[in-house]
Amino acid sequence: MRPLAAIVGAGCTRFGDRLDAGLKELFVEAWREAVGSVDKGLDPKRVREGFIGSMSSSGHQIANLAGSLMEQVGLRGLPAVKVENACASGSYALRMGLHALAAGADLVLVGGVEKMREVSGWDSRRWLGVGGDTENERFHGLTFPGVFALMARRHMEEFGTKPEHFAAAAVKNHANAAENPKAALRNKITVEDALRAPRVAAPLGLYDCCPAADGAAALLVCRPELAKEFTDTPVYVAGQGAATDTLAFVHRKSVTTLEATVAASREAYRQAGTSAKEVDLAEVHDCFTPSEIVACEDLGFCEKGQGGPYVASGATALDGDVPVNASGGLKAKGHPIGATGVGQLYEVWTQLRGAAGKRQVKGAEIGLTHNMGGFGVACAVTVLRV
Amino acid sequence: MRPLAAIVGAGCTRFGDRLDAGLKELFVEAWREAVGSVDKGLDPKRVREGFIGSMSSSGHQIANLAGSLMEQVGLRGLPAVKVENACASGSYALRMGLHALAAGADLVLVGGVEKMREVSGWDSRRWLGVGGDTENERFHGLTFPGVFALMARRHMEEFGTKPEHFAAAAVKNHANAAENPKAALRNKITVEDALRAPRVAAPLGLYDCCPAADGAAALLVCRPELAKEFTDTPVYVAGQGAATDTLAFVHRKSVTTLEATVAASREAYRQAGTSAKEVDLAEVHDCFTPSEIVACEDLGFCEKGQGGPYVASGATALDGDVPVNASGGLKAKGHPIGATGVGQLYEVWTQLRGAAGKRQVKGAEIGLTHNMGGFGVACAVTVLRV
Repeated sequence: MRPLAAIVGAGCTRFGDRLDAGLKELFVEAWREAVGSVDKGLDPKRVREGFIGSMSSSGHQIANLAGSLMEQVGLRGLPAVKVENACASGSYALRMGLHALAAGADLVLVGGVEKMREVSGWDSRRWLGVGGDTENERFHGLTFPGVFALMARRHMEEFGTKPEHFAAAAVKNHANAAENPKAALRNKITVEDALRAPRVAAPLGLYDCCPAADGAAALLVCRPELAKEFTDTPVYVAGQGAATDTLAFVHRKSVTTLEATVAASREAYRQAGTSAKEVDLAEVHDCFTPSEIVACEDLGFCEKGQGGPYVASGATALDGDVPVNASGGLKAKGHPIGATGVGQLYEVWTQLRGAAGKRQVKGAEIGLTHNMGGFGVACAVTVLRV
Repeated sequence: MRPLAAIVGAGCTRFGDRLDAGLKELFVEAWREAVGSVDKGLDPKRVREGFIGSMSSSGHQIANLAGSLMEQVGLRGLPAVKVENACASGSYALRMGLHALAAGADLVLVGGVEKMREVSGWDSRRWLGVGGDTENERFHGLTFPGVFALMARRHMEEFGTKPEHFAAAAVKNHANAAENPKAALRNKITVEDALRAPRVAAPLGLYDCCPAADGAAALLVCRPELAKEFTDTPVYVAGQGAATDTLAFVHRKSVTTLEATVAASREAYRQAGTSAKEVDLAEVHDCFTPSEIVACEDLGFCEKGQGGPYVASGATALDGDVPVNASGGLKAKGHPIGATGVGQLYEVWTQLRGAAGKRQVKGAEIGLTHNMGGFGVACAVTVLRV
């Protein structure tokens, strides 16, 4: 099948505490790496439009972020827009870029940027919460650790999942992040560390929760037939599905399946002409460890309800059946909201080009990213292949 | 030339103080009018994706706005995204919709919504300011009334424009709004009223400035070849251009020409195979009266520098050469940021279908919208025709 696009360059900053850089500086850093990564070189004038994922930029009292970033990277005047779907903003920025290519653009800039470690006016915890149902749930105390704790408890109740299973996801992701120079948390942990850590929202402890982080990522994405102008090793976007769901947690039929993930993955597999069985590695949205376990089920890597034992078995380790979150995931690479989805694509791009160093997944040819906003209120699944 | 799309339904709330409705209620109101306006009826399942322009929604502590609004209008699950380019968010939402149609969608929902009269956490004045260069200019006192006052002063200095010229734009727009039931300010004013009003930032007085407003608007937009399935009187999107410019006022070569307007209009005319001379009516971004005068120049309705006498001559009145802001414009219809650009498109759609009542521009066949974020940091110009 004809792919939707090709990624011919990619860049990503280190995620984590970046008090040395503002939104602009972070984005410029990612842009420079992306341009430098284009094997045969890139004249920036080839870029026709920009799409930037970001959520809290207005918390920095900056609207018009997209145009401003174009100016910062030397593309003053270029059409550009910011897109926001909470934590899924980055993958929806890619979606807008894919549409623009279909509409005739040769090459577009897709990026994401976020500063969560210092947000003016509000603190970062409040910003992290705004992807939920503020009016009906969040103001009454149901913030995200609580939402995902309810998912975890229900999964334990329905399927016998255990705290050790959640811990296994965290242990794996910390181990992977230890080999990723761009990760926020590079300390290895044990299952015992995770189980003994302070509880945030029982059954979830500190190591079940991803850290707020600063960061940016950028992709140079072109029409597939132009890819070889820029590189002999393009990574193709073979398919992307997107879906939304109810804002309120209470309106869900099930809280152990995220329907937006199921719908988005179905469409992504269909477009790519592939299936879960053929996926060689995946970056999934593990804002909390139960989310990774449920994602493995909803994406079809294992049967519904079996995500806990599946992850704990080593099937998702670097040398496992489907390595999941080789980057360290949101859990340990970090979660700079708008940059997260683009950072996932950066990781899969790096892996499919065989450039991931000690965390390289051997022989990977098909990779997937799963990025969601809030409790799966918005979701995008993207299939990449060499 | 083949048009890009057809608008087959449109809705718009009353703009202004809407303390009776939140973001969701406003959007549902616009959606219902849009669906009801589809002459041959619309099965909402035909909608394939949603694009929502909004700026301050995170000021209401609501991210994931787009998915939430899909749920509110009965389209739970639909892919949807919020786009933000400050005050140009609405027209960029259309841009994303046009791209999606090119990528294969049959019909999309394009909307905009904003609550400016009650924003939690911050006040609306602060939200209105965030489209400027917060770090380098706004925090030092250069807010938008000041920016546009500097544009006005420089225009007076370079071209001999007079306060009476700015007042003429306000008088015309208030008169037009008096015939628009959806307008926020429906009181007629005189040139003397405008000149005697309290100064906001000299030379601009109260009547030179648009009011903050609540509001929403929605469009149903399909591939042009499908239009006749929905209506015998579609309005076609013949072309759209978009461009950005520097965030900082101080970095501009000129402050009496907005280069993003010039570039965007050039592209829109090219795509539509038309020119300024053929435009029968225009909705332009008159956040302040000098902006309308400069837009008339930058869009090519009159020579550079002649915008003041041109507007004062009556050329832009309802029965003039190119009626400008028949709706009342931002100045008197009101300016609910993310809804503004979509509201402009609603007005031109209404006019081109001959349904504008007492403010109808006779025989209008080609209309234009000009929507910008901040001091022309982002701009989109769209040409519509029957």
